[in-house]
Amino acid sequence: MKIIPSLEVRAQPVEEPGASKTTVRWLISRPEGAPNFAMRLFEVEPGGSTPLHEHPWEHEVYILEGRAEAVAESGPAAVNPGDAILVLPGERHQLRNVGDTVARFLCLIPLPEEE
Amino acid sequence: MKIIPSLEVRAQPVEEPGASKTTVRWLISRPEGAPNFAMRLFEVEPGGSTPLHEHPWEHEVYILEGRAEAVAESGPAAVNPGDAILVLPGERHQLRNVGDTVARFLCLIPLPEEE
Repeated sequence: MKIIPSLEVRAQPVEEPGASKTTVRWLISRPEGAPNFAMRLFEVEPGGSTPLHEHPWEHEVYILEGRAEAVAESGPAAVNPGDAILVLPGERHQLRNVGDTVARFLCLIPLPEEE
Repeated sequence: MKIIPSLEVRAQPVEEPGASKTTVRWLISRPEGAPNFAMRLFEVEPGGSTPLHEHPWEHEVYILEGRAEAVAESGPAAVNPGDAILVLPGERHQLRNVGDTVARFLCLIPLPEEE
């Protein structure tokens, strides 16, 4: 068993085009021994967002803090702390902080098969 | 994209032997379209615990609220909101609420292969 205090994990800027004011902490992934999927903690400053993009794997998200919008093909929807979000493989998506405080959410993704 | 407010998902008692005062809400799983892993929200009342058990799949846990102990082979360790926990396949484990308020945590597990 490994216990990983999230604030002790380095916050790395998300530098993908279209991302702004966003960092990611990789809490649990291959280096910790995760066999199948990874847990990341994202923090988005007010006015910031993750990139509007799509990819062939899913996201499982849980909103921890802040006021955000989840943007899908159909447009934006308000999301609040306690909301879980499933983004299916291939779905276009983005998370925007529309509040005055940092927005924090977990985002889990499958890990690629080990070589 | 599916948005699932966690408190709208039914809390089911955990009835496995050794569990006490614990419920689980399956936020994201096969019925929602999850391809690889499931997100569950556990709530443990003061004095309650999940079963002390082991199984051949991992847990990825994130503590949301409350004061808890994570019990491993080596004994109990305090865990706090913001802590991530990786339980490896085959590791004996338990979470106990040692505080005066409900303890809430997410626990993600791999889904079995679809038949």
